[in-house]
Amino acid sequence: MRKSAIYPGSFDPISNGHLDVIRRASKIFDEVIVGVSLSADKNPAFALADRVEMAKAAIGAAEIKNARVLPFDCLLVDFAKSQGVKLIIRGLRAVSDYEYELQMGYANESLDPEIETIYFMPSLQYAFISSSVARSILRHGGDAAHLIPRGAAELVVQKSAKFARKNQLN
Amino acid sequence: MRKSAIYPGSFDPISNGHLDVIRRASKIFDEVIVGVSLSADKNPAFALADRVEMAKAAIGAAEIKNARVLPFDCLLVDFAKSQGVKLIIRGLRAVSDYEYELQMGYANESLDPEIETIYFMPSLQYAFISSSVARSILRHGGDAAHLIPRGAAELVVQKSAKFARKNQLN
Amino acid sequence: MRKSAIYPGSFDPISNGHLDVIRRASKIFDEVIVGVSLSADKNPAFALADRVEMAKAAIGAAEIKNARVLPFDCLLVDFAKSQGVKLIIRGLRAVSDYEYELQMGYANESLDPEIETIYFMPSLQYAFISSSVARSILRHGGDAAHLIPRGAAELVVQKSAKFARKNQLN
Amino acid sequence: MRKSAIYPGSFDPISNGHLDVIRRASKIFDEVIVGVSLSADKNPAFALADRVEMAKAAIGAAEIKNARVLPFDCLLVDFAKSQGVKLIIRGLRAVSDYEYELQMGYANESLDPEIETIYFMPSLQYAFISSSVARSILRHGGDAAHLIPRGAAELVVQKSAKFARKNQLN
Amino acid sequence: MRKSAIYPGSFDPISNGHLDVIRRASKIFDEVIVGVSLSADKNPAFALADRVEMAKAAIGAAEIKNARVLPFDCLLVDFAKSQGVKLIIRGLRAVSDYEYELQMGYANESLDPEIETIYFMPSLQYAFISSSVARSILRHGGDAAHLIPRGAAELVVQKSAKFARKNQLN
Amino acid sequence: MRKSAIYPGSFDPISNGHLDVIRRASKIFDEVIVGVSLSADKNPAFALADRVEMAKAAIGAAEIKNARVLPFDCLLVDFAKSQGVKLIIRGLRAVSDYEYELQMGYANESLDPEIETIYFMPSLQYAFISSSVARSILRHGGDAAHLIPRGAAELVVQKSAKFARKNQLN
Repeated sequence: MRKSAIYPGSFDPISNGHLDVIRRASKIFDEVIVGVSLSADKNPAFALADRVEMAKAAIGAAEIKNARVLPFDCLLVDFAKSQGVKLIIRGLRAVSDYEYELQMGYANESLDPEIETIYFMPSLQYAFISSSVARSILRHGGDAAHLIPRGAAELVVQKSAKFARKNQLN
Repeated sequence: MRKSAIYPGSFDPISNGHLDVIRRASKIFDEVIVGVSLSADKNPAFALADRVEMAKAAIGAAEIKNARVLPFDCLLVDFAKSQGVKLIIRGLRAVSDYEYELQMGYANESLDPEIETIYFMPSLQYAFISSSVARSILRHGGDAAHLIPRGAAELVVQKSAKFARKNQLN
Repeated sequence: MRKSAIYPGSFDPISNGHLDVIRRASKIFDEVIVGVSLSADKNPAFALADRVEMAKAAIGAAEIKNARVLPFDCLLVDFAKSQGVKLIIRGLRAVSDYEYELQMGYANESLDPEIETIYFMPSLQYAFISSSVARSILRHGGDAAHLIPRGAAELVVQKSAKFARKNQLN
Repeated sequence: MRKSAIYPGSFDPISNGHLDVIRRASKIFDEVIVGVSLSADKNPAFALADRVEMAKAAIGAAEIKNARVLPFDCLLVDFAKSQGVKLIIRGLRAVSDYEYELQMGYANESLDPEIETIYFMPSLQYAFISSSVARSILRHGGDAAHLIPRGAAELVVQKSAKFARKNQLN
Repeated sequence: MRKSAIYPGSFDPISNGHLDVIRRASKIFDEVIVGVSLSADKNPAFALADRVEMAKAAIGAAEIKNARVLPFDCLLVDFAKSQGVKLIIRGLRAVSDYEYELQMGYANESLDPEIETIYFMPSLQYAFISSSVARSILRHGGDAAHLIPRGAAELVVQKSAKFARKNQLN
Repeated sequence: MRKSAIYPGSFDPISNGHLDVIRRASKIFDEVIVGVSLSADKNPAFALADRVEMAKAAIGAAEIKNARVLPFDCLLVDFAKSQGVKLIIRGLRAVSDYEYELQMGYANESLDPEIETIYFMPSLQYAFISSSVARSILRHGGDAAHLIPRGAAELVVQKSAKFARKNQLN
């Protein structure tokens, strides 16, 4: 049977930890759809189009052939249905992630019982990387290149100049 | 001895998990006061008056006779004192809840040593329901009727039309 | 309505943290039954009869009039039924407690849906006291008198002489 | 690509929670190998052969065609290699599980970098079922039939008579 | 060897828990630098200059001679470098703290491998005090004097009048 | 001021994670005393003398000059007093560690208020190494050399032959 899986998130911006999950999932499943959610209520640092562009650049540079990037702005279960996919992939990093994920997983199941979610633990070297750490370093003009995948790093720097300016005014 | 207990929260909106705690507490204590806090700092999705109305509707539909709903906008210990009640009820859902609750419980005790707090675990079918999940579904136009008590569900839909509009503008 | 509650545990030995829960519960409920379980599979340090005697001594010294101590060696739900009680009290101390308690609570509910369990957080000064800490101090001949209630402390010292000897032979 | 996965554990005894993971994994992968480990250091309640027999009975009764049961008594990575499988499946139930699993996952990865582990959260109705709860009920002569899969339940009762006798002598 | 350590935070406002860490660290190290970060992204309740002033007042009143207070608005590792210090001190209060701290610690290490971070657990009586609890009490006009160190308490009351007004308008 | 610190544990056997803490502490303090506790109640896999020997070998091979190894069989606070040391060092690895450590820390403080405990997080590459993982690999004849420090590794292999035999008989 051909198996596709959706890896949803806000990817604000894509990190080496995200790319690690994509790479590992791409070895298990026939296709991995990286779903970049609008996440308006989280007030993301980067625009949706920028986040999609950075994710595409990272996947291209890593030469992962069976992954593609799509934006979405609806319930995850509706996005999955629109793609004809029933399998969701999520990364787990910490206990607080774990509980949030449980809640989301059961909420999705309550909306569509056919949806199945499976979880990856991070590879050790990426275990404590997060987009929020990367953003915090960028905000102070630090170097986050070791947290951001090759290909996306330059885009992040370029686009975060704008973002750093916006924060300075606050 | 006659025992009253206060069940405080923002009830934004009331969920089946909340109603479950109210129902179970109403079997143990002579009276349950559902205290709806203004919670201005949490920037609630529904207005205080709407949250009170939804809680009343849910309790009415569930025919819980010894529960009543009151709004409050002061420290919980002061609200309890104003009602002549020394017992607080809280629901626990997750480890992160647990720590927050510990902190709040000790803070309340430091403000009024006569205050006692007891905790309910959720019934299994409500273990992962939360108001924030319900809001997230409503925000995307999904159906949250299975998370919201009968009686309150129509009110939530009606009042969240306004709320969804407000979010779209952000 | 008259309300009784069961506070079950192995009480190996009773600690100041246990006594604190008993005292606080005795102010909320008309009667508190301290149920001392045999807990053979936990390989307790003190004999069941000794644990009952120590709990009685502590409650007597604290002059808690509406608490009584009973041993039991069956499922908790069956003990509750035999006493005509539907309410269980448990103390929570840590995240690991919390998860164990959730599991036990749902297991009990699955065996008898009428059983209700409520939880107390420890008073701050007892938050990190446990019977196992007390035993570890006793095992090395240290002074655990500040962890053990007045009335029980002498019994614990006297009975743990035997226990320390037994451990030395291991 | 044809995908096999190993679901290892002590299955002491197999529970409805285990069977739920097997059923869901069998829909995602072409073959699920249920690996029953000897786990001598955990001092299991049931003999290895009995645990294998109970797992087979449960899977047979559930008519899961693409799952098979094998015992093993070596490192998990060596068992996986012997089966030509690189994918491990684990269930997560609680925060403490989560940390133990992380540790084991990294240990396995350190022994064989090609091994990949993915995780399932329990379906809600099985979220708090565990073999140890089932054993605790059986030990006291209670009815654990709702925790044990059809097909295995009779075997568990029959084999645990012996087990209860052994515990009574302790 | 002479040892200096930096204790960074937003100190919004300084609490008895913070002061306890400063006092204990000042007994272990030759100098403790209390680094008050701007933390613009956390939207602090008190202005940076006010937070510095309150921290100084608390340390002065407690007569801790080898601690001094400095504001900073850059990456922590850069602040440490500017002070010629390689040792960071952090307080831990809860599981959620713990995970956040791990993430920050590894992020700092990734930016400067020479940086070392050590952690203090709170003294029991301060275990559940936090600046956010103090702010929440102040917001409702309650008395938080038992949470705020002598010397800083009057400043906090005086400066939070303004802060309460600002909140009332929200 | 000259600063000594005790790093206590069962070191059963010493791991790369332990050695990492010793190395980092040796840079902060003038002397690090590695206290190997008898821990009879934990039923250790290696004899006390063997554990001391392995720790000495690892520290020797790592050329850490200001660390020395001592066995002890009493309460930690009494061992500290006998060495004239007031500072305890502990490593933290996981949430469950964290809670256990809090409990022990407060117990020690209750026995000797002058005792201070500080905590190290593991370096990332050692974050999920534990003696129990190493033992589990050794028990199955696997290669744990990457978990055990140079110098101690050969001793561990040699001494665990005996240990594996003992386990096989169980």
